[in-house]
Amino acid sequence: MTKLYNDPARFTEDMLAGFLDANARYVVGVPGGVVRAHRTRPGKVAVVIGGGSGHYPAFCGTVGPGFADGAVVGNIFTSPSAEEAASVARAAHSDAGVLLTTGNYAGDVMNFGLAVTQLRSEGIDAHYFAVTDDVASAPRGDETKRRGIAGDFTVFKCAGAAAEEGLDLAGVLRVAEAANAATRTLGVAFDGCTLPGADEPLFTVPDGQMGVGLGIHGEPGVSEEPMPTAAELAGTLVDGVLGDRPDADGRRIAVILNGLGRTKYEELFVVWGEVSRLLRDRGYVVVEPEVGELVTSLDMAGCSLTVMWLDDELERYWTAPADTPAYRKGSAVTAPAGEARSQDDETVAAATQPAAVADDEGRAVGRLVARGLEAVAAMLADAEAELGRIDAVAGDGDHGRGMVKGSSAARDAATEAADGGAGHGSVLSAAGRAWAAKAGGTSGVLWGALLTAVGARLGDTGTPDAAGVAAGLRDGYDALVALGGAAPGDKTMLDALLPLVDELDRRVSDGASLGEAWRDAAEVATAAASATASLRPKVGRARPLAERSVGTPDAGATSLAMCAHTIAECFTSVGQGDI
Amino acid sequence: MTKLYNDPARFTEDMLAGFLDANARYVVGVPGGVVRAHRTRPGKVAVVIGGGSGHYPAFCGTVGPGFADGAVVGNIFTSPSAEEAASVARAAHSDAGVLLTTGNYAGDVMNFGLAVTQLRSEGIDAHYFAVTDDVASAPRGDETKRRGIAGDFTVFKCAGAAAEEGLDLAGVLRVAEAANAATRTLGVAFDGCTLPGADEPLFTVPDGQMGVGLGIHGEPGVSEEPMPTAAELAGTLVDGVLGDRPDADGRRIAVILNGLGRTKYEELFVVWGEVSRLLRDRGYVVVEPEVGELVTSLDMAGCSLTVMWLDDELERYWTAPADTPAYRKGSAVTAPAGEARSQDDETVAAATQPAAVADDEGRAVGRLVARGLEAVAAMLADAEAELGRIDAVAGDGDHGRGMVKGSSAARDAATEAADGGAGHGSVLSAAGRAWAAKAGGTSGVLWGALLTAVGARLGDTGTPDAAGVAAGLRDGYDALVALGGAAPGDKTMLDALLPLVDELDRRVSDGASLGEAWRDAAEVATAAASATASLRPKVGRARPLAERSVGTPDAGATSLAMCAHTIAECFTSVGQGDI
Repeated sequence: MTKLYNDPARFTEDMLAGFLDANARYVVGVPGGVVRAHRTRPGKVAVVIGGGSGHYPAFCGTVGPGFADGAVVGNIFTSPSAEEAASVARAAHSDAGVLLTTGNYAGDVMNFGLAVTQLRSEGIDAHYFAVTDDVASAPRGDETKRRGIAGDFTVFKCAGAAAEEGLDLAGVLRVAEAANAATRTLGVAFDGCTLPGADEPLFTVPDGQMGVGLGIHGEPGVSEEPMPTAAELAGTLVDGVLGDRPDADGRRIAVILNGLGRTKYEELFVVWGEVSRLLRDRGYVVVEPEVGELVTSLDMAGCSLTVMWLDDELERYWTAPADTPAYRKGSAVTAPAGEARSQDDETVAAATQPAAVADDEGRAVGRLVARGLEAVAAMLADAEAELGRIDAVAGDGDHGRGMVKGSSAARDAATEAADGGAGHGSVLSAAGRAWAAKAGGTSGVLWGALLTAVGARLGDTGTPDAAGVAAGLRDGYDALVALGGAAPGDKTMLDALLPLVDELDRRVSDGASLGEAWRDAAEVATAAASATASLRPKVGRARPLAERSVGTPDAGATSLAMCAHTIAECFTSVGQGDI
Repeated sequence: MTKLYNDPARFTEDMLAGFLDANARYVVGVPGGVVRAHRTRPGKVAVVIGGGSGHYPAFCGTVGPGFADGAVVGNIFTSPSAEEAASVARAAHSDAGVLLTTGNYAGDVMNFGLAVTQLRSEGIDAHYFAVTDDVASAPRGDETKRRGIAGDFTVFKCAGAAAEEGLDLAGVLRVAEAANAATRTLGVAFDGCTLPGADEPLFTVPDGQMGVGLGIHGEPGVSEEPMPTAAELAGTLVDGVLGDRPDADGRRIAVILNGLGRTKYEELFVVWGEVSRLLRDRGYVVVEPEVGELVTSLDMAGCSLTVMWLDDELERYWTAPADTPAYRKGSAVTAPAGEARSQDDETVAAATQPAAVADDEGRAVGRLVARGLEAVAAMLADAEAELGRIDAVAGDGDHGRGMVKGSSAARDAATEAADGGAGHGSVLSAAGRAWAAKAGGTSGVLWGALLTAVGARLGDTGTPDAAGVAAGLRDGYDALVALGGAAPGDKTMLDALLPLVDELDRRVSDGASLGEAWRDAAEVATAAASATASLRPKVGRARPLAERSVGTPDAGATSLAMCAHTIAECFTSVGQGDI
């Protein structure tokens, strides 16, 4: 159980505040995460790591000389927003570019990818790289679909050391790619973890059983086996990792035996004794192994074995000194750091948006859009518990909270924009940016992209017609597909969005009014959302045990259909004549 | 749950082997524990820390430059034996003496105290110091009766830094005393921990409750309270620790917020944010705080707050660099270390015992003594589970295992001595040394001292008479009382031993034969052992929740009475005439 918190909704903020206070020698906070207490020196690439929190010391615990320059800190098990990633990258950046890197999860890939686009538009040279070390999450040949788990540590460490050594951005990216290509991890879990404020664990492993290949948020594993002895477990882990060894199978390896939270150091050492013997028996030389908690999952019981096959360059980076809040190695005497930061200075100005020119009609529709978002936010606030319940069957139960955070931020931004005289396009874009920034996670970035795309299509003048709205929604769907991470049939919100868009198109082409067409499209979306109950989520995505979720609809598809209905009611209440 | 192990009986050995393998850069193993990988340099005091295991990184995880020179590693939650403590101290010692230091627990106090006596007899200047930081375990004015918990860390760190700086043994001892006098800790627990191989936790805390002042093995606390918010908990901990502040209440303090195993870093940081604010509000300056797992209890849920009030000297030692397997701080560039050790070299020759001169009678009685110990060992092997069950009500359930380990070692040593022609006194002494060395813990040292004292009184010649045996047993009782830690009425084996000794004396004075007197004394001991069910163990000793143990007899008193009966049966079977 995660037992200690004040307001569960503020757990991450409270955690971060305490972390910064305890580690003021190392880090200062910036919007979206943390950066080193000294500015990145000129000429040095900044390495920014991240992802959701709940994995301490990953990720903010390894910011410091020899390791990361900054860490983006999302909510527990939830990707940070693109705006948060860009904010931390800006603060960490000196003049030589930024490598942003996370484990390979749909939400992180989208949000950090968007952040790179944003940073480049600001003239900052930025690249993104996703770690794919988990052999259990996709078969050989499909390595790019694998999740990132404890191998995050070897890859981030090598990239950080390479940047410290002075490599340019292309060089640091190359080292990250090489470290990732040389790294394999297999994990097991014996018991689930509990989110702050939750009464039940996120997932469970049956008593006396072990989930093999279970991800660090309870994502699907390969099999369940009877609980082994320490020696048997060592055999399972060593066989699993070595069975997937890369072609360049050198004799020198870096090894991590990682505890997930509740499995303690004493137990890890018992297992390590067996692992070390097996690796030696097979002719490997273990270089400076790490046995301990490096990438955790709150109080989850379990552990994982990571092997990175070393060449001279990777060995140099693996053994290089580091000095961070949670990981210190050797004498981290590095090239002189930049000037000290003060926490007070570290505010990043929000990017200002150029004002668009709206006409009276556009401003009137903008106010209607803001009212529509108010209705959506109110509906979602009522539905939070139900959406959380649905999501908890197959996910981490935070969908309801994410949708409420996002929609209420969108409502506030839309109201402010409309009150300021913005047209409907700008109101929708402001709402989209706010949704993505405040909700985080996968649903946040998707909803943000959807609203922004519709807004861009509609513009700020005149009253949009049914065909324009349908085209805007099609743009939004295309934007979501382009963000990657899912296709129709993967049991996501796309499974409701595509039928909605298709039906809207069809009815509008038949000559229906926008209100009529939308009402029918919302019905179709609801049916499609229900039908996701029969789908099985695609393995390799950040989704818990596939088996469990069959029979329950997808929470993202469900909430999309609910929003469509609320908007349909808005059309009815404002009357067909208004639009 | 502690889930990963091979043979639970070998958990500590397996853990230690894995720890040494993973940390070969820092440490090598010696009989009884670990020492630094480089010999202690000439002129430097060796600081040897220790106690039972299950508290990682305490204690072996903090052996290295700037911290300890060696750690004695007992079984889980069980004091190492005096022989183990002396062995590690010998290996760590250079030429400037050894400070041995542990938390204040009866078993550690006895065993490390005996080790100091042994080391001094070998010409090694040695001192022992017990840490007493737990404010919940005894009231103000009774500070010397307090347990040592996470304050072990501040005291060991300052002593280690003082030794590194070059202070002599008196100086290092003075620093340890000053650090202890300036350190206060209050801990809370939310859930128990489980020993390797056990199906049930060692103790439980009711759902939704928090045990305030619970020790790191589940020893009695001050109260049970409803589970608080993080902010409320911070208030409880800060009020509790500051309410017991030492007279020298300076403004600069070292602070540890320690996690006990299952309470994770994220939660600790949430609490730390509140603790830090409260301390600042009260005018304190927090110097280099530590928030994390420093003194754990397997997978126990809970945390503790430690404050050490600093003067200039303590602040220098608190902030000094250290470089150990689990704790690294600053650049630990210390004075040159001695030569590197190799694991193979590190064997410590057992002290050889001078041969005593026995006559034929003495040799014959020696063989009878060995047969008696064989019967005792066989009886205890049968009774292991029952003794474990009784002990688990109020203790950590390992009494049965400890008695089996000790008695079987004593049997083997006695048989070997008797086969080698030793008289009864030497056979008993050999058995006593073996019992103490192999059993560890409190019962090991007490039984060892008991047998050794009887042997010393009886000598190796002639056939002992009833008065001699009674006098020997009285000597043994006196030795146990002198070892400290308990008095009659404290619910320990003394509560059965004193009635046994008194009844034996009385019946022998009345002219009864040794067999008759012993049989009656065994009956009295059994009744006395049963009567311990109504006693409540003394608070401050290493015993779990006092309340729980009322209604259950003490396991140590019970096993003593059982042994007395087995010995009575031996007297009957060899016949009155034999002795």
